Amino acid sequence: MEIQSLIESIGPLNEAAMAMARERQMQLTKPQGSLGRLEELAVQIAGITGQERPSLPRKAVVVMAGDHGVTAEGVSAFPPEVTPQMVLNFLAGGAAINVLARRAGARVVVVDVGVAAEMAPRDGLLLRKVAPGTRNLATQPAMTREEAVKAIQVGVDVVRAEAEKGLDLVATGEMGIGNTTPSSAVVAVLTGRRPAEVVGRGTGIDDAGLTRKVRAIEQGIRVNQPNPADPLDVLAKVGGLEIAGLVGVILAGASMRMPVVIDGFISGAAALVAARLCPAVTPYLIAAHQSVEVGHRVLLQSLGLRPLLDLDMRLGEGTGAAIGMQIIDDALAIQDEMATFAEAGVSNRE
Amino acid sequence: MEIQSLIESIGPLNEAAMAMARERQMQLTKPQGSLGRLEELAVQIAGITGQERPSLPRKAVVVMAGDHGVTAEGVSAFPPEVTPQMVLNFLAGGAAINVLARRAGARVVVVDVGVAAEMAPRDGLLLRKVAPGTRNLATQPAMTREEAVKAIQVGVDVVRAEAEKGLDLVATGEMGIGNTTPSSAVVAVLTGRRPAEVVGRGTGIDDAGLTRKVRAIEQGIRVNQPNPADPLDVLAKVGGLEIAGLVGVILAGASMRMPVVIDGFISGAAALVAARLCPAVTPYLIAAHQSVEVGHRVLLQSLGLRPLLDLDMRLGEGTGAAIGMQIIDDALAIQDEMATFAEAGVSNRE
Repeated sequence: MEIQSLIESIGPLNEAAMAMARERQMQLTKPQGSLGRLEELAVQIAGITGQERPSLPRKAVVVMAGDHGVTAEGVSAFPPEVTPQMVLNFLAGGAAINVLARRAGARVVVVDVGVAAEMAPRDGLLLRKVAPGTRNLATQPAMTREEAVKAIQVGVDVVRAEAEKGLDLVATGEMGIGNTTPSSAVVAVLTGRRPAEVVGRGTGIDDAGLTRKVRAIEQGIRVNQPNPADPLDVLAKVGGLEIAGLVGVILAGASMRMPVVIDGFISGAAALVAARLCPAVTPYLIAAHQSVEVGHRVLLQSLGLRPLLDLDMRLGEGTGAAIGMQIIDDALAIQDEMATFAEAGVSNRE
Repeated sequence: MEIQSLIESIGPLNEAAMAMARERQMQLTKPQGSLGRLEELAVQIAGITGQERPSLPRKAVVVMAGDHGVTAEGVSAFPPEVTPQMVLNFLAGGAAINVLARRAGARVVVVDVGVAAEMAPRDGLLLRKVAPGTRNLATQPAMTREEAVKAIQVGVDVVRAEAEKGLDLVATGEMGIGNTTPSSAVVAVLTGRRPAEVVGRGTGIDDAGLTRKVRAIEQGIRVNQPNPADPLDVLAKVGGLEIAGLVGVILAGASMRMPVVIDGFISGAAALVAARLCPAVTPYLIAAHQSVEVGHRVLLQSLGLRPLLDLDMRLGEGTGAAIGMQIIDDALAIQDEMATFAEAGVSNRE
C-alpha cells in the first residue's frame, strides 16, 4: 500500500541543523530566549528543512472541500449548498482564506474531494471527487475504507503536484458544511473522550442543534463501532472526505521535509489521524491557532502541540494557518537577517 | 500647559463608523463572529479613524532610547553601554525591531531622549536628549517634573513630525538597559501592587539580581513617596525618560485619531501613565502582545486591554508591536477585500 511506504519515509528532524540554528540564535543581538516562540519556530524549521537559516518563499494552503451526509441530522447552521457556493467564492478570490493567503504570500489550492454537487471544470479547481459527499455517519459508515484511502491519496497527489511547481511550506484548509461533526466524532474516538466534551457550535448552531449534534455522534459511534486502535477505520466510519484528503496533505508534506501548518479543528482532526498513523509526523506540524471550537484544545493536547495564536477564530478554510504563516516568516526573517553581537559591536551580557 | 490641551483634544471613538463596520462584517461570506478578534480590530479601527473600511499603509515604530541611574543597583543582566550600542544597531538595521518592522511595512524612528552617552549626529537618529539618563530612583527622584514633561513633549513632537511625512498608525518601542525597573516601579505605584508582584527578570537577571531589583524599587518608593493620584509625579520620581517620551507618543497618536499599538512591559507602563493622565486614550490603544515579564499581566488588566499575541516574547524595542501590526493589517484586509454574501451568491444561515 502506497500510504504505508509514505509513512515509512518520514524520518526524524535534523538535529545538527537544529543545533546550528540554536547556536546562531545565541549570537543575535538580543537577550537569549527573548523572542520566545519565534526562536523555537526557527529551530524547528531548521530541523525540518536541514538548513541553519531556512527560508520558505513558496507556500500553499490546500483547501479540501467535501460534504457530509450527517447534515441530514440538522447539525449545522448553514445549508449544504453553501459548500459548492464557497468553492466558487474561493476560485473568485472573495473568501477570507483568499484575503489572508494573499497577505501571507501563499497560493490557495482548491480541491473537490467530495462535494455533493457536481462541480463544473474551472480554472484553479482540482476535480478529484472520490464520492459526492459522505454517507450519514449517524446511521452507517461515512465512507468505505477504500474511499478513505483514495481521499488520502488525493491529498498526497495534490502536494506532489504542487511540489513540482515549487513548494516550501504547506498548510491545511477545508470547506464542508457539517464538518465539525465528523471532526468531533474522530477526536472523541481517538482520544477516548465523550462526544459532549469535544462538540462545539461550529458555524453557530443553537442549543437544540448542539444537542442533535452530540446525539448524532453518539449514535454514529454506537452504530459503526470504530476501532480507536485503527485510525483508518475511525476516519472511514465517522470522518469525512476532506479530512481524509488533509491526512494525505500532512503525510506528504512531512515526507518531503516541509513544515506543515495546521489550521483549526477540522484540520486538527486530520492531523490527529495522521499522527496516529505515523507518530513521526508530529515534529513537522505547526499548530497555527487555538480555535474557539471546544474540542480543539483536547485535540492539540493529545498531539502535544501548542498553538501560535489565539484570536477567537472559528472559520476554518485555512484562515488561522495563513496568519500563522506570517509569524513563521517573522521567525525566519529574525533567524536570517538580524545582526550578531560581533557584527554589530554590541556587548553581550556580563 | 500644552500637554493639558493635547489631553483635552482626545475625543471618543466614532460610533457611526463602528456601526457601519459591524454591519459590513455581517455581510461578509463567513459565519458571524467567526473571525473573532480580527472583526473586533476592524470595528475598533473604524471607530478610531472614522472610516468603515480603513487602511493604514503608513506606519512607524517610535523607539525611544534612554538610560537609568538605577542600573548602579545591579538590576540588569546587561551593562549600560549596550543602550548606545543598540541605538547604533537600530540605525544600521540589524536589530530585531528592524527586521520585524520591515516585515510589517513600518519605518523605525529612533530617538535619543535620554541616552547617558553622547550620541554623534547620524542619519536617522533624532537627537532630543532631555538628560543623559535618569538619576538613581532608589535614592532620589529619577527626573524632575520639568524633565518628565519635556520628555513627554519630545514624544509629541516626534509624532507630529512623522505625521507631516504621512502616518496612519504609530507603535511604541524602546531601548534602555535597566528599564524594566522603572516600569515595574510605575506599575506598582499606579496599580497599588507590591513591587515583588510586578517585578520580572527583564533581559535575564538571576535570583540575586531579582532580589536587588525588588529592593531598589521598594526603597525608591519609600524615599520618593510618589503620589499615585498624580501620574506625572509617579513618572518623574520612579519612571524613565524613554517611558515619558512614549507617553507623549501615545497621547499624540490618539489626538490625531491614529491606532496606537503598544508593545510590551515598558511601553505598557507608558500606556498606563497616559491612560491615568487621560482615560479617553484607552480606546485608541491596541495591546500587541503578552510579555513574559510578570508585571505586564497586571498592567494590561488595569488598562482593561487584552493582548493580541502571546509568543513568550520579552525583548521590547517594539518587536511585539511590529508583529501585532501584521494582524491589524490582516483584519483590515478582511474588512476591505472579502466578498459579501450577495456579491458571491452564497446562502446565509438558515
